[in-house]
Amino acid sequence: MGKVPDSPCSIARSLGVLGERWTFLILREAWTGATRFSEFRKALGVAPDVLTERLNTLVEHGVMRKVPYQEPGERARSSYALTSAGQDLTVLLAALQQWGDEHLPWPDGPAAILRRVDGTDRPVHVGFIDDEGHEVDRDKVTLIRTAAYPVRA
Amino acid sequence: MGKVPDSPCSIARSLGVLGERWTFLILREAWTGATRFSEFRKALGVAPDVLTERLNTLVEHGVMRKVPYQEPGERARSSYALTSAGQDLTVLLAALQQWGDEHLPWPDGPAAILRRVDGTDRPVHVGFIDDEGHEVDRDKVTLIRTAAYPVRA
Repeated sequence: MGKVPDSPCSIARSLGVLGERWTFLILREAWTGATRFSEFRKALGVAPDVLTERLNTLVEHGVMRKVPYQEPGERARSSYALTSAGQDLTVLLAALQQWGDEHLPWPDGPAAILRRVDGTDRPVHVGFIDDEGHEVDRDKVTLIRTAAYPVRA
Repeated sequence: MGKVPDSPCSIARSLGVLGERWTFLILREAWTGATRFSEFRKALGVAPDVLTERLNTLVEHGVMRKVPYQEPGERARSSYALTSAGQDLTVLLAALQQWGDEHLPWPDGPAAILRRVDGTDRPVHVGFIDDEGHEVDRDKVTLIRTAAYPVRA
């Protein structure tokens, strides 16, 4: 079961929930429309007990929520939907995708691309943005420690 | 040893190089200035053989490069620097950080924040941007399959 470490580092905390094997690929499937256990299972070929465990971790930490459904003549089951916190992970998934497309390219080109859906259909990428909405080059961004940063002995 | 899977999904390929335990935290340390084996080791408390293996994977896939150095009276050693491909991962690390700060907050607040370093000192975040440089809300972004997307039987 994924566990949030007692760490002031938010990268480490995020990885406590997201960093286990299969989890990012489960989220990828959710992003592209999978909701049912059988859909995740079929797309990923992951063992059922591992898939159950990963989905439970994501539900426990508010990334996905269970939605009951029932097919005629079958027992009630749960499907899994991204919460708002889970939808906030799309930028992280897109950053993984973007890096792979650039640095580990597929011979036939990208299998999927990002576009605006508001009618303009413009290509979209992931990057740094300042509070005035201007894109910032990565070498113009720095990480500054705050007062909450732990002082090491 | 991390291995790039033979998959058209660039998220899966990226995770082949980056998805092993400790790798994102090693990259976090590199981002914040660590270069020497002993620095990574001390900051993370990771077993030496695991750290060696992870660093080798990152070097093999062009994320880090070895830089020789020698202290007076000691043997020559290697330090590890992010390549340009490795520096491209800062947006991914920042996305992990941002998600953790928002959804798994630390009681004392964020331990580190992103700023522009070009004199304006403006706060910076990670997000979707279109090809005209406009920020795009995540619910206005969609993933479109290309001709390179595999057809499943």
